[in-house]
Amino acid sequence: MRKIALLITGLSVSVQLLAQNDDSLFIRRIANEILLNGKAYDNLRELTKNIGGRLAGSPNMVKAENWGQDVLRKTGADKVWLQQCMVPHWVRGGKDEATAFYLNAPSKGIAVTRVAKNLDVIALGNSLGTGAKAILADIVEVNSFTELEAKKDQLKGKIVFYNVKFNSTYIRPFEAYRDAVTYRGSGASRAAKYGALAVIVRSMSHSTDNNPHTGAMRYDSINAKIPAVAVGLKDADWMDEQLKKGPLSVSMKTNGHFLPDTIGHNVIGELTGSTYPDQYITVGGHLDSWDPAEGAHDDGTGIAHTIEIMRAFKALGFHPKHTIRFVLFANEENGTRGGKKYAEEAMAKKEKHVFALESDAGGFAPRGFGFEVTDDQFAKIIQWKSLLEPYGAGNLVRGGDGSDIESLRESLKTPTSGFLPDPQRYFDYHHARNDVFENVNKRELELGAISMAALIYLVDKYGL
Amino acid sequence: MRKIALLITGLSVSVQLLAQNDDSLFIRRIANEILLNGKAYDNLRELTKNIGGRLAGSPNMVKAENWGQDVLRKTGADKVWLQQCMVPHWVRGGKDEATAFYLNAPSKGIAVTRVAKNLDVIALGNSLGTGAKAILADIVEVNSFTELEAKKDQLKGKIVFYNVKFNSTYIRPFEAYRDAVTYRGSGASRAAKYGALAVIVRSMSHSTDNNPHTGAMRYDSINAKIPAVAVGLKDADWMDEQLKKGPLSVSMKTNGHFLPDTIGHNVIGELTGSTYPDQYITVGGHLDSWDPAEGAHDDGTGIAHTIEIMRAFKALGFHPKHTIRFVLFANEENGTRGGKKYAEEAMAKKEKHVFALESDAGGFAPRGFGFEVTDDQFAKIIQWKSLLEPYGAGNLVRGGDGSDIESLRESLKTPTSGFLPDPQRYFDYHHARNDVFENVNKRELELGAISMAALIYLVDKYGL
Repeated sequence: MRKIALLITGLSVSVQLLAQNDDSLFIRRIANEILLNGKAYDNLRELTKNIGGRLAGSPNMVKAENWGQDVLRKTGADKVWLQQCMVPHWVRGGKDEATAFYLNAPSKGIAVTRVAKNLDVIALGNSLGTGAKAILADIVEVNSFTELEAKKDQLKGKIVFYNVKFNSTYIRPFEAYRDAVTYRGSGASRAAKYGALAVIVRSMSHSTDNNPHTGAMRYDSINAKIPAVAVGLKDADWMDEQLKKGPLSVSMKTNGHFLPDTIGHNVIGELTGSTYPDQYITVGGHLDSWDPAEGAHDDGTGIAHTIEIMRAFKALGFHPKHTIRFVLFANEENGTRGGKKYAEEAMAKKEKHVFALESDAGGFAPRGFGFEVTDDQFAKIIQWKSLLEPYGAGNLVRGGDGSDIESLRESLKTPTSGFLPDPQRYFDYHHARNDVFENVNKRELELGAISMAALIYLVDKYGL
Repeated sequence: MRKIALLITGLSVSVQLLAQNDDSLFIRRIANEILLNGKAYDNLRELTKNIGGRLAGSPNMVKAENWGQDVLRKTGADKVWLQQCMVPHWVRGGKDEATAFYLNAPSKGIAVTRVAKNLDVIALGNSLGTGAKAILADIVEVNSFTELEAKKDQLKGKIVFYNVKFNSTYIRPFEAYRDAVTYRGSGASRAAKYGALAVIVRSMSHSTDNNPHTGAMRYDSINAKIPAVAVGLKDADWMDEQLKKGPLSVSMKTNGHFLPDTIGHNVIGELTGSTYPDQYITVGGHLDSWDPAEGAHDDGTGIAHTIEIMRAFKALGFHPKHTIRFVLFANEENGTRGGKKYAEEAMAKKEKHVFALESDAGGFAPRGFGFEVTDDQFAKIIQWKSLLEPYGAGNLVRGGDGSDIESLRESLKTPTSGFLPDPQRYFDYHHARNDVFENVNKRELELGAISMAALIYLVDKYGL
């Protein structure tokens, strides 16, 4: 009996090894297809260079939706459709401007004069403008909400400058972002509570340039909706230095406002499953982007990954067992209405969703994947580590999916995952004017598509 | 007895865990020091922007040596000295030029005319120029040495075009380089054997631009020393296309020549060991670079890493047990005379070298290290994996050190290692005009220094 048991164990190990070998060979075919015949880079060029920034509600949003439909169709989807959702329609409304004024230090009989210096700023997304007249006020700098509270009696009629540095000692910059983004998100309302007229937020970045980084903010329902801008890092450091020498005032003018909500769409392409056509695997990125640049790493690369996975599957004649949905989500940046709509409709139609994967961390070389799954599911996933390692994507960790698929997880308990590319350069470009095609590397982009395709292939084959 | 044995085993595991925890904390201190107070990026800026390209024998070589001495001293080396070696002195001698001529296709009564197109070329390092008069000859394209041999009767009086593509299906581009570099190295002599007048080599890269990539070639002692250039990838593809339509001739002019060997130096800084002052750990990169750019990733970043490790150790008050030598090697690119000299002197002085580590694969985010060590040594090293993983450097593999330390390994059996940063972008810049400071990312550079410092710390503490 023991011998038979051993034999069976041995057999099962061999079968598993053979399967792993088959998988390894198929993933190698995916890799060759993408590295030799890949269209991810060309698709990204079209989206970024021919269309450009594509904020929800903008004319470019519509262009991007049309482009997405067209590409998904050309790439060979069995079915392509638009899933309508209402999206917010914030517009920048003009050029954001800020000028700092300070008194020069008197020296050798030169009289004290008022000196002006332009600051490189960008209004935060969803923020309301100053109106036709600029706001001119003294600056009060704070480095935390604790300091804001401590200085609450000094804020009336002032501009609050949140100079909260990106913590560079985190190895994963996303942790620095998590800490800092609260000042961008709620800094305006918290300062307005004490009578501040506007806020300036240090950009959420550790870049070496002075490009300001925008991103979503939100007003609470209680306090005045005061203007809010992000300022470039060099200018932020300069303001900090200047404030040590004496008072600093800033004149700022922004023009942000909301137009009525408008119609946007998730753009969805499907490859129909051979065995479980009514069970869905979702892979996607978001089609919208902030307006100052081309939305290359955020999230043109997620879109390019998504389409490339379908292209590779078709080119290899791979027929998935489950229906795979390739989703170009609407309005991630300032509303996640696309992700919410997708989950709502899945709920309403009682769809069975097996897995969802998002790429929204840039088109850099793969490191791995984060998973929001049960212990049992993770135990299964971790067995695939050696299949993903050759492509640099062997770092499989718990936690982290993506804004567009979290509604699916929350409402349908769908296991979800986020692609984890190397994170070091992401916040150099994130929501800034340099998030352009030229800052995406072709091979790094392709390796991301390979890793994601491999994971989708494994989930489709083995389930979760 | 068994219980005691278990107890001892348990104790030893605990001691090991405690030690790992200490190590983890110290490496975290290294990381914080480098991420908060790092000078690697500033040092790299000085070397690349204030000095620039620094080929062996050039005036910039001398400037770089002076700078290196100065920085090592300022950084706190116990001892700094120059180790003299004779270096080759190849000079480009002027602008490299090539023009292609072809016949346009006759259409609608337009006569056939000869059309000229400039090609973006760069003479290979060590190659001899065409002389005052350009070489004009028909092109014969080959895609391998096998094809060269097959066409040997067609080569007399022609220019051979080695259009050997970088194999993009390798996940590690260094493997593509290994395959392709033989055409750069020995292509000229092998074509000269059959009477070719010159060679044009497709650049060793998979970049998306047209920058030609130089690099060392060598003539054999038998055949004519014919001129040799690299051509940009877009021009290479164009030539290939054009040759399918009809004959193509190229006029090329290069000016490379050798001046007499001259004096160069390894620049060496030392931190004296507290316990084993006469046992050496070497860490280094190479100070020389090709001339068309600033030698940023090749190998300014290796120099910046090297100096930064010393700076961090000093800042943390870390006193190594072994003497650590920080070596800025001379003449890696076209002679490796610096590395050879270093090993020769170590042999002559019967020095005991415990370990040597080189950074010469760019300043990208760390992935791990390659090791040229014994099985026992590797078994020890692999235990450090979990200490290096948090910094992205957990990929510890057999094989691969660096050109400057291989002589030490060969002559003294020193265990050696090469830092392995992410390899995807290296050959976009390698030996080309875009290998400039702007293409190095500050955090990626710093993370490399952290990983290398951690490894040096572990080898110093535990030996090999």
